[in-house]
Amino acid sequence: MEFTVLYSSGESRARAGRISTPHGTFDTPVFMPVGTQGSVKALCPDDLREAGVRIILANTYHLYLRPGHKVIERLGGLHRFMGWDGPILTDSGGFQVYSLSKLRTITDEGVSFQSHLDGSSHFIGPELAVEIQKALGADIIMALDECAPYPADHAYILKSVELTNRWAMRCRELMEGGEQAIFGIVQGGMYPDLREMSARALVEMDFDGYALGGLSVGEAPETRWEVVAQVVEYLPWDKPVYLMGVGTPEDLVEAVKLGVDMFDCVIPTRNARNGTLFTSEGRLSIKNAQYAEDERPVDERCTCYTCSRFSRAYLRHLFMAREILSYRLNSIHNVHYYMQLMGEIREAIKQDQVGAFTRKFYETRAEMSVRS
Amino acid sequence: MEFTVLYSSGESRARAGRISTPHGTFDTPVFMPVGTQGSVKALCPDDLREAGVRIILANTYHLYLRPGHKVIERLGGLHRFMGWDGPILTDSGGFQVYSLSKLRTITDEGVSFQSHLDGSSHFIGPELAVEIQKALGADIIMALDECAPYPADHAYILKSVELTNRWAMRCRELMEGGEQAIFGIVQGGMYPDLREMSARALVEMDFDGYALGGLSVGEAPETRWEVVAQVVEYLPWDKPVYLMGVGTPEDLVEAVKLGVDMFDCVIPTRNARNGTLFTSEGRLSIKNAQYAEDERPVDERCTCYTCSRFSRAYLRHLFMAREILSYRLNSIHNVHYYMQLMGEIREAIKQDQVGAFTRKFYETRAEMSVRS
Repeated sequence: MEFTVLYSSGESRARAGRISTPHGTFDTPVFMPVGTQGSVKALCPDDLREAGVRIILANTYHLYLRPGHKVIERLGGLHRFMGWDGPILTDSGGFQVYSLSKLRTITDEGVSFQSHLDGSSHFIGPELAVEIQKALGADIIMALDECAPYPADHAYILKSVELTNRWAMRCRELMEGGEQAIFGIVQGGMYPDLREMSARALVEMDFDGYALGGLSVGEAPETRWEVVAQVVEYLPWDKPVYLMGVGTPEDLVEAVKLGVDMFDCVIPTRNARNGTLFTSEGRLSIKNAQYAEDERPVDERCTCYTCSRFSRAYLRHLFMAREILSYRLNSIHNVHYYMQLMGEIREAIKQDQVGAFTRKFYETRAEMSVRS
Repeated sequence: MEFTVLYSSGESRARAGRISTPHGTFDTPVFMPVGTQGSVKALCPDDLREAGVRIILANTYHLYLRPGHKVIERLGGLHRFMGWDGPILTDSGGFQVYSLSKLRTITDEGVSFQSHLDGSSHFIGPELAVEIQKALGADIIMALDECAPYPADHAYILKSVELTNRWAMRCRELMEGGEQAIFGIVQGGMYPDLREMSARALVEMDFDGYALGGLSVGEAPETRWEVVAQVVEYLPWDKPVYLMGVGTPEDLVEAVKLGVDMFDCVIPTRNARNGTLFTSEGRLSIKNAQYAEDERPVDERCTCYTCSRFSRAYLRHLFMAREILSYRLNSIHNVHYYMQLMGEIREAIKQDQVGAFTRKFYETRAEMSVRS
């Protein structure tokens, strides 16, 4: 994997660059839609391409449990299995083990847990986390980390960071040679000293990129941005920074200015399925009665398939009638919106107009609030 | 509407023709996928076009209740609302009133019923049934009929046919002038004398086409084909014959030989959502464990989007994981299969090879049964 910074903002830490992987290159800052179970929900690979998606995320935990990484490996890897020929980043499975599975027990070896699907017992340590991701054929692999609860006291987080660092080292060592890249994950809760400790240890191990984990777990937004701003200072300029599980359009704009290059989040697709659509003027809840006879597209400035073909009235009808097509059309729009936004952010960085872009971004939204 | 018989089989009553409507022409025999609520479930108009669909059916009952035919009319009609610019046939709503709604009361005026959605009270008579279908902008409108229960005694069906004939006359009279076509629906249960009475009365009224209703209600297949063969004899050669709610691929092959030109059925789309896929060699239940690592497409002879991109293993995974994409990919395949089959049937009629086609159709299936 290669990362090249092409432009950097004079007004902030924002930078625009390019990452090349075995399955192609993509421009940063980049947003990765989440393909949990080998499918970005309701979308096929052509929908993703057409919406401008260049890299997706897949969930190790889910694919390990079903259909199994060995099955996918025998079928030629995840790219071939799901028909997506672009880059794939896989998470380590850690986050889902902590958030979805039952009866977790963490030791230095790894984590024992019960499947959320059938209660069966499993064990994933750093070695298996890497093995699974290698078998899937990920372009970018994530080191296994402990996702500590929030809030947690300093003593707990200290131990957790130490464990995560040991696991990171074991993952790193397994990646010598080969084309797949690996990122380490900075933890440390909301404690500046532990975030620094975590970041410095990982940088010492020389990963291909660095992720910020353990955020968006219920902390105040100001706390989150303080942590991001602090951690980015410890990371090398020539390696990509990935803020995991974030976020809203506003989050992306803020984080880019702090130096973040990569994002993933279920928000565009999950909100689509709940009927919340993103527009250049803010959010729109398609189930509202006010759209029942609204012939306009979701966003008049949008060029996505959904907006070029269908009215708010039709999308509202599909949503109210629980038609399956509703999920796809809404998801196409939201994913396209995120891709469009990231493209505008990249262009603003290139033009060194990040401040002006940000002001316009918020102004357009404020106007909408006034109107509606 | 114009119907032209272009080829007729020397071996059977099968014929191949062409129907022109305000929204385009299509070849017969034709299969119409069912777009109940303004969407052929899980598919968008481009999926339908790509699968070879040329005409779809929409349900008057559902669209009347939600979002309402007046809403759709104000939005420019159903074609514009759902983004489908090809021909649309609407049913009369009769069948759904009898099969879905509660507390039905039938009088000479029409039928009172309670909505299956919210229990609200409604009344549809022949006048409103036509008004709704006109408002939707259907290319082909169906007269309101009574769908009698099965089995029912001769006296009940006699009264029912008399009522259906009176309703048909009122519908027919409302259609003078205008571009929309109207079909009458032959009823009469399984009683030959009442089927004859129904058919002759409708032919006297001079409809643009004739449908066979009240079949596939639980009768034996032989009974159904006897009724179809009998009724078709009373219908004019120069008008299309439409067998409502039928059927399986085998049903289509049999009915075409009896002179049927048009079909609609939820089988391809509903089965798709249940994981049953149609192939040139028979049915395939995608959830079966035998497909877990099967890299072949659903049907190696199929050229649909699904078969050209995805393996049985992936489709099985999507189905087991209940991914929304499963419904779309399976539906694309099944609808394409039906379209392909109808194209082959039309070609066989053109070549006057219906008998040979039928033998091959069953032989290929029999071979598969032997192998699996």
